This record gives sequence, structure tokens and C-alpha cells, in this order.
Amino acid sequence: MKNNSELRQDIVSGDWVVIATGRAKRPQEFLQSKERPGFYQPPESCPFENLDEKTLIAYFKSGEHPENKWWVGVVPNKYPAFSREGEPFLHSVGPYKWTEGIGYHEVVITGDHERSMAEMSSEEVELIMRAYQERYLVMKKDDGIRYIAILHNHGHLAGATVFHPHSQIIAIPVIPPDIGKSIRGSGDYSFRYRSCVHCQVLKYELEVKERLIYENESFAVLAPFASKTAFEIRIFPKKHSPYFEEMDKEARVYLADAMRISLAKLFQGLGNPDYNFFLHTAPTRDTREFGQYHWHFEILPKTSIWGGFEISTGIEISTITPEEAAKFLREIKL
Amino acid sequence: MKNNSELRQDIVSGDWVVIATGRAKRPQEFLQSKERPGFYQPPESCPFENLDEKTLIAYFKSGEHPENKWWVGVVPNKYPAFSREGEPFLHSVGPYKWTEGIGYHEVVITGDHERSMAEMSSEEVELIMRAYQERYLVMKKDDGIRYIAILHNHGHLAGATVFHPHSQIIAIPVIPPDIGKSIRGSGDYSFRYRSCVHCQVLKYELEVKERLIYENESFAVLAPFASKTAFEIRIFPKKHSPYFEEMDKEARVYLADAMRISLAKLFQGLGNPDYNFFLHTAPTRDTREFGQYHWHFEILPKTSIWGGFEISTGIEISTITPEEAAKFLREIKL
Repeated sequence: MKNNSELRQDIVSGDWVVIATGRAKRPQEFLQSKERPGFYQPPESCPFENLDEKTLIAYFKSGEHPENKWWVGVVPNKYPAFSREGEPFLHSVGPYKWTEGIGYHEVVITGDHERSMAEMSSEEVELIMRAYQERYLVMKKDDGIRYIAILHNHGHLAGATVFHPHSQIIAIPVIPPDIGKSIRGSGDYSFRYRSCVHCQVLKYELEVKERLIYENESFAVLAPFASKTAFEIRIFPKKHSPYFEEMDKEARVYLADAMRISLAKLFQGLGNPDYNFFLHTAPTRDTREFGQYHWHFEILPKTSIWGGFEISTGIEISTITPEEAAKFLREIKL
Repeated sequence: MKNNSELRQDIVSGDWVVIATGRAKRPQEFLQSKERPGFYQPPESCPFENLDEKTLIAYFKSGEHPENKWWVGVVPNKYPAFSREGEPFLHSVGPYKWTEGIGYHEVVITGDHERSMAEMSSEEVELIMRAYQERYLVMKKDDGIRYIAILHNHGHLAGATVFHPHSQIIAIPVIPPDIGKSIRGSGDYSFRYRSCVHCQVLKYELEVKERLIYENESFAVLAPFASKTAFEIRIFPKKHSPYFEEMDKEARVYLADAMRISLAKLFQGLGNPDYNFFLHTAPTRDTREFGQYHWHFEILPKTSIWGGFEISTGIEISTITPEEAAKFLREIKL
């Protein structure tokens, strides 16, 4: 079977891009509509309200559920950016390199069409985290996979195309540039100072507290000192670990609590903003090298639009200090 | 005088972010409006229609201009992200580093409220390029400056906040992460193969022609092999040079021709899409090291919204092959 997508390597930076023609449009279809319709989609026209249950991996809430209704369902993405067809070879064309887009692309859907993660209970969020972790462990077994991205887009400005709350798990055959950079940065720091840079940051932030938004027994929620966007939030496990997938069940309950509270504070404080959240964790192979990494979640609300300065330099401009943003979010009562 | 902005360094990646509180909003002002008003602004409410001419550096078209009306005017940005106040020292706070946002932030405005660059004549575009180059040469003299970004945002989705066509020139005291990466990539290639990677790419692309969109005597217009977005365009000088500012007047006329034709093809083919274009050129100091770089312009139309995958990995997904995009743009008759 032919793989519908390919990874191409930028010859200068070494970064990868995906050309996924499985979702191909003809050039004319890129003609831009200046109309921006309201994003709400009613249940009748929702692709996630009528899933083929045979394809579904289902998770149920505890207690009685007389309608036998699942709370979290996992399905293959109908328009995958990565699929398991093909072989993981590096090809050359002229001076360039490319490889087939080998991987997995799954969608994690919750059972309520309307309620976003900010409005869910901790138990409901915990089942989502469990689905993330269990699917991660399955995909990780595949030797062709180097990295597994877990992400959630909330709202049209954050890139969501379906209103019904859902997340994506995308397993790919290369280490992403941004992960590679963080791994190298963590490794350099560890080489120089013999400690995890993230543990150092946590120690400092839990002392000074000015960028601390929330903490529970196992997780700290921070506004990063060098926040990329206004109201950026990071959720760190207090205990050092490079590997998200090794989290135990007790920690997962605390993670769900920290995630739910972070999202609920944004929802209440900024009026249900669009946002992306995602996992950053160590790659799935060559595990010896990654011991100095420290997994975490990042939440980036869409408070501004990137312009040419941000796109051309990689330097983002935020118009509120992380200290002020943290204070504002910390003081929101839920 | 206190500088209103600061550059903070990410302790893991080494990347910089800007906290520019000169444009500060209170937290409540980030509350998101879901309304997206039409972007057109009438001349009566345009901040660029009533400039203080005392602050203006003006460029005039050749021939007669009885109203003595300038075509290009350059003014300081009213809400600068960088300014010349302060000293370029690196400060520490806890484990972190930051420096004051020292630099320049100017706006390059054209004399017609309505016509975008895609609709201008080559002479009109050439005067814009001349303003870019001459202001670059002035800012470069400042020892505190390491990089000068030149960029143009067209349309609301591209981050423009004023409708009237304008560009920005932003001089900053650090080398941006994305430029640093390209410089290192070019240097590594040159170390291994004793040639400029961009010259190699140009040689190959001018032979195979499948990603070539347009060429004139001095410039080639390409869809990059690893395009980051659908219909990405790059404009390269055919002759090797790291330094945009060293371009002679004859080359500048050809650059204006290549830029005008690229933008006009996008305008016609994709129905006036929003886009960003920007310069990538060598940093302004330590010039010996940068001899292997090759300046160019990049044009990125806004054909999609970044989601959590792109933001968390740095890998972008395009749904059209660069070959197909190039063919489509190449065949547009102007």
C-alpha cells in the first residue's frame, strides 16, 4: 500500500515537514474565504456523534452507566497525517532527503458534545489521561516510531476543525525539531551542572512562588519565566521523570486535577479562550540519552496572532509579564 | 530612561522571547472576543493617513509629482517592541537570564491606502525595497544591534492590525533562534561540502525546474522542496551573497520585479490571501562567520491555522505538494 504522506527534510536546518496529500485539495480550493463562520456545530452534523462502535476503544466512568455509554472513545483519524503503510527508509532526490509518513494518528473523543475539558470533572479528565497513556504504550511498541505527540486543540483559532471536544495522538518516525532542541538543551545543562534543568527550575519556582499558579501533591502549575505567549501554562511532575508513559495511577489522578484546574482558570479568567495543550516527553527510542529530560504539559491560549516577526525570527512577543499572568490566574477562585 | 521591553532567555532551548509591556493590557483585556470584524478600515480612521510629516523619512517616485506626495514614508513605531533606551547588559534572576529590549522598530508605509503590494508597479515596489535597504544600513551602524528583521504582514490572519499597507523593520540585540539555526546549517554544509547549500539548491532547482515559479536575470523564485506551508515562496539572488544590504541598485530593480510578480501570482491564484513575507539575511556583527549564508525573502500565505501538532513539534503539515503549488503559480498569466 502506498503511504499518502511524506516527511521532507529541510536541507539547511535539518527540520522536517509533512506533505500529507491524503487530505489533498486542488490549488483552487485554497482560495480564501474571508467569511469566518461561528464555530459551533450542532450534534446532528457532528462526525463524532455517530461513530462506528466496532472501531472504537471505549473507556467508561466508574459506577453505574445504565445506557452503557462510554466516556472516552479512541478511533483512527479518518484523514491521517501518518499511517502504517510503507517502510521506514530514507530516500534521496537531488540534494534532498525524504521518508514516508509512517506512524499512527488516533483521535480521543469524549462522550459529551458540548462540555469542554475546562468544564469536566476530575474523574472525567483522568479517563482522558488514561486513554492518552494506554494508547501511548501501545504505539511505543512499534520499532518504526521515534516520537509520540499528544495534543488537544480547543476552538477554531487553535486549529480545531470539529467542535466536539477531542484530542489527537500522533506517532511519527522522526524526532521533532522542537523536542530535539529541548533534549539537547536539557543534556547540555545536565553535562555542565550535573542536574536536571527542569528540577532546578521547579525548586526555584516553588520557593519564590511568583510564577506559581497552582500545585498539588505531585504536580506544579507554572507560568514559565520566558513565556512564549500571554498566559502560557506548564504542568510539571514534581518528581523527576523523562517518560510520561511511566506515570503511575496515583500520579495520573493528580495530573488530571492539575489539568482540570488550569483549564478551568483559563476558561473563567479569559472567557473560554481558544487554546492548544500538548505533551512534551522523551522520544520512544535511544532511551539512555534522554534520562535528563523531564516530561510536562504546555497550555498555550490563543491570545494573539503570529505576524512576520514571530514567523521569521522564532522570537515571540508577549504583552503581559508571566508574573502578572500567574497572579491573575492564581487568584481566580473556582 | 527605562526600556519598556525585555528579552528573556528560555533556560532549556536558549531561545529568546520578548515581554513588551509598552503595549500592556490588563489581564481582563485579554478576554476573547469571538466576533471577527471585517478587516477593512476606511481612510478616515487610518493612523497612516495623518502622519506627522516632521517624523517622516520620505521617498518619492520619479518624474513629476505636483502634489509633492511621497510614495514611501518611514516612521518610528508608535508602540515599539524594541527601543534605544537602556544598556545591552545580560542580567540574571535566579537560574534565568534576561536583557533589555534594545533596538529599533520602524514602520514603512506606502502612499496609497487601498492598493496592496500585489497591485503595485515594479517602480513602486522598488522604492519600498530601497527604503528597507537604506534603513537597514543606518540601523546596522549601531554596535548594540545583532540582527535586523524586515517583514510585511498582509491581512488580519497574518497579524496585521492596520489595514493600510505597511512593513516593519525591527533591529534587535540578539541573533534570533531561527536565524542562528539556518546559519549553523549553512555553515555545517559548507564545512562538509565546501560550497553554499543555497547555491547548490539553486543550481539543482534551475536545472529540474519543477519547483521553479519565476526567474529573471538576478533572482529565482521557488517553492521550497520542504515547504512549511502550502504555496510557500522563496526569492533567492542567483549570485551568492550573505548580505541583503550589499545588493546594488540594478539587483534591487530585479528584486522588486521578482517580489511584485510573486505577490501578484498569489493575489490572482488564491484570491488575495493573507500572507507574511520577510527577509532572512546574515546577522550584522561577526561577519567573518557568516560568509556561507545566502540572503533571501520568504513569502508564507495563510492557507491554514497551526494546531497543537505544529506548535508542539515544530513540524508543519502541508496538504499540497510544492511541485503542484509551483506548477499552479508558474502557469498564472499576469
